[in-house]
Amino acid sequence: MISYNEMATEDFVVQGFRAAAVNSGIRGKDRLDLAMIVSDMPAVVAGVFTTSLVKAAPVLLDMERCRTGRAQAILVNSGLANACTGEEGMRLARLTTAMAADALNIAPELVQVCSTGVIGQQLELACFQRGIPRAAQALAADGLAEVASAIMTTDTVRKIAARTVLIDGKPIKLLGMAKGAGMIMPNMATMLSFILTDAKIGHDLLQSLLRKVVIKTFNAITVDGDTSTNDTVLVLANGLAEHLPLTEDRPEALSAFAAALEDLCQELALMIVKDGEGATKLVTIRVQGAASEAQADQAARAVANSNLVKTAFFGEDANWGRIIAALGRSGAQFDQHQVDIAFDEVLMVKNGLGQSAEVEARATAVLKKPEFVVTIDLHAGEGYKEIYTCDFSLDYVKINADYRS
Amino acid sequence: MISYNEMATEDFVVQGFRAAAVNSGIRGKDRLDLAMIVSDMPAVVAGVFTTSLVKAAPVLLDMERCRTGRAQAILVNSGLANACTGEEGMRLARLTTAMAADALNIAPELVQVCSTGVIGQQLELACFQRGIPRAAQALAADGLAEVASAIMTTDTVRKIAARTVLIDGKPIKLLGMAKGAGMIMPNMATMLSFILTDAKIGHDLLQSLLRKVVIKTFNAITVDGDTSTNDTVLVLANGLAEHLPLTEDRPEALSAFAAALEDLCQELALMIVKDGEGATKLVTIRVQGAASEAQADQAARAVANSNLVKTAFFGEDANWGRIIAALGRSGAQFDQHQVDIAFDEVLMVKNGLGQSAEVEARATAVLKKPEFVVTIDLHAGEGYKEIYTCDFSLDYVKINADYRS
Repeated sequence: MISYNEMATEDFVVQGFRAAAVNSGIRGKDRLDLAMIVSDMPAVVAGVFTTSLVKAAPVLLDMERCRTGRAQAILVNSGLANACTGEEGMRLARLTTAMAADALNIAPELVQVCSTGVIGQQLELACFQRGIPRAAQALAADGLAEVASAIMTTDTVRKIAARTVLIDGKPIKLLGMAKGAGMIMPNMATMLSFILTDAKIGHDLLQSLLRKVVIKTFNAITVDGDTSTNDTVLVLANGLAEHLPLTEDRPEALSAFAAALEDLCQELALMIVKDGEGATKLVTIRVQGAASEAQADQAARAVANSNLVKTAFFGEDANWGRIIAALGRSGAQFDQHQVDIAFDEVLMVKNGLGQSAEVEARATAVLKKPEFVVTIDLHAGEGYKEIYTCDFSLDYVKINADYRS
Repeated sequence: MISYNEMATEDFVVQGFRAAAVNSGIRGKDRLDLAMIVSDMPAVVAGVFTTSLVKAAPVLLDMERCRTGRAQAILVNSGLANACTGEEGMRLARLTTAMAADALNIAPELVQVCSTGVIGQQLELACFQRGIPRAAQALAADGLAEVASAIMTTDTVRKIAARTVLIDGKPIKLLGMAKGAGMIMPNMATMLSFILTDAKIGHDLLQSLLRKVVIKTFNAITVDGDTSTNDTVLVLANGLAEHLPLTEDRPEALSAFAAALEDLCQELALMIVKDGEGATKLVTIRVQGAASEAQADQAARAVANSNLVKTAFFGEDANWGRIIAALGRSGAQFDQHQVDIAFDEVLMVKNGLGQSAEVEARATAVLKKPEFVVTIDLHAGEGYKEIYTCDFSLDYVKINADYRS
């Protein structure tokens, strides 16, 4: 694994991709707020989008274009979400991609577009008229890291990571970036992630891989239980690496690539949780022994999203009563007299009963750590799920209540 | 309506009921922590209990006894929840009701028992041995208000209210009390309510009335979305009022009684929301035009429980983007281009689009009020639901994170 801190500048590069970020005026005069990522040739695209019924205009447009299986550029802005903007919002989403296509001399259908920021306000066309040509001119192979900066909103750290995997003795590069920190000031909880690779792979296969990977990674994190209108994960694969194409006939090569993709997405997803608004701790909620995987998911999410559990984590209190109360209302089926709960390796609850004060003291010591695992065994079957969450601090309320005051 | 502040001492009395509260040592040496309510004769009982799979020992015992249709006493303690206490907890629940029955010279099966407080610790029998005989001796017609005090935990106000309804020209009295303020320190979000009446009514009818009323009142409030292991609403009806029995053959009389019961429960339920931990505002989330009542309920609860919506209320920000984002993930079906949202009478969103800055200024003025209504019209059908919630302040986190520090 190459983590962000260890990455040298050359790690931010993938052959055949160029990028640039500029200030276009959407967010004042200084911040990077508009960016483009461009492949030298049409690439295979795969995308996973918000499950919310309320989808932003760029999401609707990307979903439509993703079905063609090809894309060559991503246009992204921060500051405005272009969500709840009606027909005018759709018109502007199409128009801005046409402007980008024009500047890049490619077909508009090959441009994906993402927005993040305030819901309900229309994009200002002038910013795109100003920003797009400048971004197109500035495109450079080493520009990807700047895109990761341009998409930050309440994020406190830039989220970028890379993997290299050898297939047929040839290196395949995967570079990923993400944004998201809970609720993005002032209106949105958007998570965006772009993954660029030189792998050779078809659209259907990449799409099905991405779906599976997202379930285990980006869809297994929660900061505040809210889903955004703009959540988007896009993968562009330009096929420049020298390996033989990845196909279902080559399960070993495919699973090596899938593992690298999952590992990369997992690193980005955990970066988001750690940077959760006001978060001070990264907590893994691991449910095992559920009656089904779906019930493991229900149980883990109920615990991971409980304000009472999350405030107890913030208070460094091994408050297992709140965990068992969340399990009880989760909808998962189990016998309360068979539940075990451990904080890291400290078994705090056995058969639904709390253990000694000495055990609780050791559990409390675990909660003082910046990262720990809560393992819940329901003893009701084989269902297993891990969900990644953070604690719930005073700063979360401050960030989300005070921004206009 | 007689509200708490207007009530004279005689309003805390219902003929045929006596009560007392004492300090038994469960919560130190000074606080009232053990109470009994006793009817002079066996009364008709109805009960509604937590939907959590994890049910406290007293809840399991009450559910069993409630089916007999008769009860003569309620024994209640605060400080310990007797939840997640296994077989020993069940034994202690039975034993303490037997002790109360003994002191009152009635059958143990006629005693209901409620506990609220810390999960996972066993009751101390010595406290009950000390407290029960003293409470039995202190029983008095004017002791009911003290019970309302004894069941308070993180509550900041005592919750008690009354109604009188004339049926057949005769007055029927209903006196209700409740506790609950979000999460009860240190582990529980318990809501308890006891309603005493001299009405003449059968068990099955009272039980079915209570179920309907609870759906609209106690089950329509939310402070933090967590359900307790101990939630209990009990009604005791001793039949001493002089009206003819309430039966399904007399729909007019029955609906007058039902209306009084609902009105009383509504007042108590709203007292709980207003006293929600850290709450500064009481907000009604009204969803209309949903595809079904179930979808109206889903939509209203998603908004009422969204931390992002609730922190915006605290920040007095007419942040409709967060509301529409919560609606989008609620599971309710609607066309995002047909959604209207009003803050009191100010229509902030029309057909999914925000209105002018002038309208937003008026909406912001609404949010500065201590109580307001958010009306959401999904234009998808006839489904209707109101859910009552509070805002989410810094104090909520402080209360729930700091209690052991």
